[in-house]
Amino acid sequence: MHSVSRSWLLLTGFIVFYIIYLLFGALVFSSIERPVEEKLRHDMEALKQEFLNESCVNSASLEHFLVKVLTANKYGVSVLRNSTVTSNWDLASSMFFANTLVTTVGYGHTTPLSDTGKAFSILYALIGVPFTMLVLTACVQRIMYPLVLAPVSLLQRSGMEPRPATVVHFVLLLVLVVLCFFVAPAAVFSAVELSWTFLDGIYFCFISLCTIGLGDFVPGTQPGQKYRALYQVAVMVYLFVGLMMMYLLLRTFHKMADLHGLTTFLQLPRCEDSDQEEDREPIVEEKCEDQTPQYLTEKESSKPLEPGSQPSYNTINTG
Amino acid sequence: MHSVSRSWLLLTGFIVFYIIYLLFGALVFSSIERPVEEKLRHDMEALKQEFLNESCVNSASLEHFLVKVLTANKYGVSVLRNSTVTSNWDLASSMFFANTLVTTVGYGHTTPLSDTGKAFSILYALIGVPFTMLVLTACVQRIMYPLVLAPVSLLQRSGMEPRPATVVHFVLLLVLVVLCFFVAPAAVFSAVELSWTFLDGIYFCFISLCTIGLGDFVPGTQPGQKYRALYQVAVMVYLFVGLMMMYLLLRTFHKMADLHGLTTFLQLPRCEDSDQEEDREPIVEEKCEDQTPQYLTEKESSKPLEPGSQPSYNTINTG
Repeated sequence: MHSVSRSWLLLTGFIVFYIIYLLFGALVFSSIERPVEEKLRHDMEALKQEFLNESCVNSASLEHFLVKVLTANKYGVSVLRNSTVTSNWDLASSMFFANTLVTTVGYGHTTPLSDTGKAFSILYALIGVPFTMLVLTACVQRIMYPLVLAPVSLLQRSGMEPRPATVVHFVLLLVLVVLCFFVAPAAVFSAVELSWTFLDGIYFCFISLCTIGLGDFVPGTQPGQKYRALYQVAVMVYLFVGLMMMYLLLRTFHKMADLHGLTTFLQLPRCEDSDQEEDREPIVEEKCEDQTPQYLTEKESSKPLEPGSQPSYNTINTG
Repeated sequence: MHSVSRSWLLLTGFIVFYIIYLLFGALVFSSIERPVEEKLRHDMEALKQEFLNESCVNSASLEHFLVKVLTANKYGVSVLRNSTVTSNWDLASSMFFANTLVTTVGYGHTTPLSDTGKAFSILYALIGVPFTMLVLTACVQRIMYPLVLAPVSLLQRSGMEPRPATVVHFVLLLVLVVLCFFVAPAAVFSAVELSWTFLDGIYFCFISLCTIGLGDFVPGTQPGQKYRALYQVAVMVYLFVGLMMMYLLLRTFHKMADLHGLTTFLQLPRCEDSDQEEDREPIVEEKCEDQTPQYLTEKESSKPLEPGSQPSYNTINTG
């Protein structure tokens, strides 16, 4: 098969499998958690009625009631009247949860209630997190040429020096990402979510795309949200593409840092190189005298074996 | 200065600056959020008293009360009697929060209440997240030799073939990490935290070290926790070292995947190589005929410029 088509077929396969994996996760989480959630919701409703029927509310009974309310709330079950309509574990919400697990965003606005759910979360993330990293890496690799290499070479052809060209390109890419993945989505979120300000939108985008995911702002959780399932899928797509762009930014910055000698200065692995270069021919013409990566020297000095007797990862043929 | 000492001095500098950055974050978060939290706590206490003094509790007044209780709870302010003693924004807790921001774990058990806090969170993570990645990378780079390269070469010297040696080493490393960073801490957490089972401990360790950080289990949040500040610092150290080991595992797996031709097969960047190898000499003897990274071929076919006229990142001297 032609290699280009094989490459794209592989990527399409990854993405299709990623979607299937999310759907599978959604089905399992939904079937495990929904009954437990319904029971808890029912119990909370009964508890609320019981509390209201009490002739006299004292401090102790209120305390007892509030402990239960807050515990249920931790699992995403609210006792408020208008929030009992939608489940946190319908198919779209379960898929949203599965997505926050595998992307490591983890808002935690809903969390598994049962031990089975917790165990499945571990198993699901164990496969899902590395797989998502793989899909993101594969996607970023395919957009490196049109978004990084081609623009840089275009800048250079227009007469710019190589190093300023990479800086100008990085700044332009950064502005583009900030506008398309922070400012524009924040405007949309602050329009769709009634209680969100624009700052809340920016805060949500930033906390999500850094995979911090505090979970104080989660889209699609307000009661009576229109087209909730569709909205949640749109947010999932936004998260995936946004993470891809963050990863692209990071790789571009890493490459630029290499070029400007920053990684060498800080003695970190270069974006392009191994941390084990002893077996290699010099690749790019570097001023090697003072730029030999330090960890090699360090290793040499602490090496217990003779160089010849130490077959490292790099000396083994991969063929 | 001797290069080895320079390398360790740099690492020490990174770690010292990391601790200073966390302390700085803690001070700022504490000074921004503590007054807001105290006001909210005070308001909630008054609201609770007012609610208790009502002669008759009806559905509407309870609903109104619960909305406020749950909103306050979202920001980590609980109305329960025994939880009003400790603040979420004392120095240790603020540092814990700052740590969950920069490591991207983001439990979200406490979140900034004020707009200033949210804006500062964005700014703080903007610098802190890349810096933490840098510190983690620098640390992992220094433990690669004693924990990965030396043991692999030892296995090979004892007569093992290179590839099985890397697999055996990876399995041993995995078992070691699981025992020291999942099983043992889970046992400790389930002993210290009264309401946690062993599964809860494993679940917490896994969700934390994958940086998912759902926040349904957060150590040191139970009321009356002894030596709370010390405990929180210990958890922070655990998180940092644990993340370092996860990153080490990932790099070791990536190297092993390179060796076994998995990255080439999946057309992903190798751990050791650039994704731009066109300007290089072959480094290790590979069966190049069928293993040329696909994206190069793909790029060749879609390249709008002639190879000679396309100065890429790799053709520029870094000297």
